[in-house]
Amino acid sequence: MEYRFKVSWGDTDAAGIVFYPNFYKWMDKASHHFFSTLGCSTSQLFKEKIGLPIIEAKCQFHSPLLFDDDVCIRSSIEELRDKAFKIQHQFLKEGIKVAEGYEIRIWAKFHGENLKAVPIPEEVRRKMMKTQMTM
Amino acid sequence: MEYRFKVSWGDTDAAGIVFYPNFYKWMDKASHHFFSTLGCSTSQLFKEKIGLPIIEAKCQFHSPLLFDDDVCIRSSIEELRDKAFKIQHQFLKEGIKVAEGYEIRIWAKFHGENLKAVPIPEEVRRKMMKTQMTM
Amino acid sequence: MEYRFKVSWGDTDAAGIVFYPNFYKWMDKASHHFFSTLGCSTSQLFKEKIGLPIIEAKCQFHSPLLFDDDVCIRSSIEELRDKAFKIQHQFLKEGIKVAEGYEIRIWAKFHGENLKAVPIPEEVRRKMMKTQMTM
Amino acid sequence: MEYRFKVSWGDTDAAGIVFYPNFYKWMDKASHHFFSTLGCSTSQLFKEKIGLPIIEAKCQFHSPLLFDDDVCIRSSIEELRDKAFKIQHQFLKEGIKVAEGYEIRIWAKFHGENLKAVPIPEEVRRKMMKTQMTM
Repeated sequence: MEYRFKVSWGDTDAAGIVFYPNFYKWMDKASHHFFSTLGCSTSQLFKEKIGLPIIEAKCQFHSPLLFDDDVCIRSSIEELRDKAFKIQHQFLKEGIKVAEGYEIRIWAKFHGENLKAVPIPEEVRRKMMKTQMTM
Repeated sequence: MEYRFKVSWGDTDAAGIVFYPNFYKWMDKASHHFFSTLGCSTSQLFKEKIGLPIIEAKCQFHSPLLFDDDVCIRSSIEELRDKAFKIQHQFLKEGIKVAEGYEIRIWAKFHGENLKAVPIPEEVRRKMMKTQMTM
Repeated sequence: MEYRFKVSWGDTDAAGIVFYPNFYKWMDKASHHFFSTLGCSTSQLFKEKIGLPIIEAKCQFHSPLLFDDDVCIRSSIEELRDKAFKIQHQFLKEGIKVAEGYEIRIWAKFHGENLKAVPIPEEVRRKMMKTQMTM
Repeated sequence: MEYRFKVSWGDTDAAGIVFYPNFYKWMDKASHHFFSTLGCSTSQLFKEKIGLPIIEAKCQFHSPLLFDDDVCIRSSIEELRDKAFKIQHQFLKEGIKVAEGYEIRIWAKFHGENLKAVPIPEEVRRKMMKTQMTM
């Protein structure tokens, strides 16, 4: 699954390169895009009181991104548990990997202000697994 | 009323100066700080289903802010209507005005997903007017 | 000139709507897109030590934007001076105007850390005027 | 070393909790604060063409942060190499650890647009080690 974007002026810092927390903002966007592409948009899930809260996120930075760079994030499910999953993200610029990271998220139901992990629905799980096989 | 902060690394852009949308982020912070200082914190208001949605915001930029600059925002009520108000913000760096702007906000009640303007409570109004007089 | 985007999860706030400073981030993106579409990308300008610092920006908010909304910004030159210009931005959601604003920017040359207003090149000026006529 | 802040309205998302990339923004702020407290501010380093580019950052999220929460980040050097270091950050809310992460950064010299790792100066290294001993 691919999510493409262009580095904006506001994403850079005084060193002329991307301010690193933006990579996590982009991993978040790529994950939302991933589920949207599966036909299971997180905005629809949110209306059904389902969220995908984060448990852990890590990123390694190989070379800097600059203003106006065209970037492609390749996302794939690395691990799929009953109520949680690990999604990997590779950042590519002109085909070269410039960064890579992952997010571990749970499938959770909102009860008022609280979130409770619940099993990932079978249909979603099948779709997620299918993306693994085709990669 | 004064709100003080330091310009962060991530607030800058590749030109080495502050990325301008951050000034609005800071005006927002200064407004929340303003009500908090009045003893009427917006987090408490939010629990009571009251929000302060924005109607209009403008800022004029006189000279750039740099990483690590110490900045003071001086906020004051410029106009106070029944269900809305205009709050002015001056950005000062070493006593020099570097930017100035305002926000027009309404006092609003959440009804599910909708917001409806309601009169500003008399007690809050009195406190807001008092800040005008002492300036 | 049109710039299209989708509201991201991170653009929202606890009231479930877009945090207002993001509108200015999007006006900035729309302006960069505007010049890029004119064949005069700001990343190329930046390499030539030209920047477009902001003098003033204002936005009026008519109705809130929500997560996953598809938004179109229609940008047009409202005023064109020797060394400065005013660019207007209309935010449309399903054809309805939800917000509108403008930015006043100068055409400026970097001299080390300083910026000095310089005349907008004749060729760029012609292209900017042409977008006015066709609107 | 401690860095204290309050969660801002704009840091939250539609689920009413902090949007996770902000934790990395705060780790970055805590790192800058760390060096500033050592008497070796990154804004001064930047003037001397020294930067601290990131190699890797990870964060684990134990419980969500809400609007207006008072947060304390406790930062400490976990590993100190010749040209790189690992700084650990613990997020505390009312004394309870809500998140923890780390950043691996290099000590680097700007040569035009390029960055080259250089040895951490002996004096800075001594100060960094001293913070480890007193913790």
